[in-house]
Amino acid sequence: MREVNVIKIGGNVVDNPAALAAFVADFAAMSGQKILVHGGGKEATRLSERLGIATQMINGRRVTGSDTLEIVTMVYAGLVNKRVVALLQAAGCNAIGLSGADGNAIMATRRSPLPVDYGFVGDINPANVNADLFRSLLEAGITPVVCAIQHDGHGTLLNCNADTVASSIAVAMSRVAKTRLTFCFEKRGVLRDVDNPDSLIPEITPSVYDSLRRQNVISAGMIPKVDNAFEAIRRGVESVCIKSSAELSVPSGTVIKG
Amino acid sequence: MREVNVIKIGGNVVDNPAALAAFVADFAAMSGQKILVHGGGKEATRLSERLGIATQMINGRRVTGSDTLEIVTMVYAGLVNKRVVALLQAAGCNAIGLSGADGNAIMATRRSPLPVDYGFVGDINPANVNADLFRSLLEAGITPVVCAIQHDGHGTLLNCNADTVASSIAVAMSRVAKTRLTFCFEKRGVLRDVDNPDSLIPEITPSVYDSLRRQNVISAGMIPKVDNAFEAIRRGVESVCIKSSAELSVPSGTVIKG
Repeated sequence: MREVNVIKIGGNVVDNPAALAAFVADFAAMSGQKILVHGGGKEATRLSERLGIATQMINGRRVTGSDTLEIVTMVYAGLVNKRVVALLQAAGCNAIGLSGADGNAIMATRRSPLPVDYGFVGDINPANVNADLFRSLLEAGITPVVCAIQHDGHGTLLNCNADTVASSIAVAMSRVAKTRLTFCFEKRGVLRDVDNPDSLIPEITPSVYDSLRRQNVISAGMIPKVDNAFEAIRRGVESVCIKSSAELSVPSGTVIKG
Repeated sequence: MREVNVIKIGGNVVDNPAALAAFVADFAAMSGQKILVHGGGKEATRLSERLGIATQMINGRRVTGSDTLEIVTMVYAGLVNKRVVALLQAAGCNAIGLSGADGNAIMATRRSPLPVDYGFVGDINPANVNADLFRSLLEAGITPVVCAIQHDGHGTLLNCNADTVASSIAVAMSRVAKTRLTFCFEKRGVLRDVDNPDSLIPEITPSVYDSLRRQNVISAGMIPKVDNAFEAIRRGVESVCIKSSAELSVPSGTVIKG
């Protein structure tokens, strides 16, 4: 195994049939070994509403009581995961859906209830990503499609952040292969002006990042994404790209390099 | 690979935490290669009720419109499958959850809308069970846990009968290994008197079956199960056992032999 691409798509793609169909066609056509990680938060929120269960977000993270854990398990590991896998199979990509419990792919640790009790929410140490399982599947020509639901090894499922799932897998795989990590979202990449798609910053190195932050060019919402990208690079990932899910197959977006 | 056990559990087990915990401990402790197939109909019916979607059953089969397909995909492939897999992992059994779409494990064919339109319901030809995938997983020490959701190969998920999923997998595996099929349910096995657990019939051969049916000893509800068992044996399965999920680890139940 030489190279692996880890691609993350968010809820805005999996929730939009046309966007998902286009993405699936591009992803299936990508050559080489690849792993897909997906969100699904919008559909989880919608199911919560239909069931009369309040959605509570703190710092952008979903508070996950036992009712909400059932909802996200149903939506992420069931509805969204199987929808994506079935579409990939139809597009000729031999995909397999995984939660962290499946084949012990990813073990997470329940987050401390202090200072904020998020409920059944987990954090991931890349050392607890089963790189051997991912490698065996990839070498057998099977493409893992991973949702945000992981397990604690003691029978409890935990809701994790899908961006963190993707970067943890990428860090773990970088020990066995040259690994590129791509975050796909609705914008073209990191923009100088969030309202102007033509203001794309094509490449961010640490010195460029310092300068952009000094100029207050990077928006508050983008800072944790870029910080995470540099963290992944520090831990062995070759490069990180932030780009539009509609532009997977063309060179585009913002490339973050160490 | 010499021998495989295919075990099916119904919704009454997966829906009952104490019964499921006991079953999981017994299943995890079973030696040899094994595949678990599970139902989940009771929880699907409950979620349908909470969402205000009517459940319609015809001849014991769930009519599966697009709303109901989302529900059974969430419950079978998400909630129940991941619950069982996480518990098996905690019990030391390296399980992996599969729908038919995952790794193209099982391809189904949508049932004709005539004479009864069941919606997104599929039938399985054992030739479309991916025995190579199951064999690879088993040889890697991984135990497949299969739900009733399969795919048609063109991107559509289909709801199948879990008993049929189990017998189709058993027939397919019998081409590569000596395969035993066990249906676990709430009774001790096939009973002469459904109200008397001590009236268990320990073994049914074709001649015993003829005699039991002539005497009207086998109840109407049990006849399709026994017919399916003989069909599996005719198609290569070594033996079929119908027993209580609470007695997995002890010789018990009704053994059906060709």
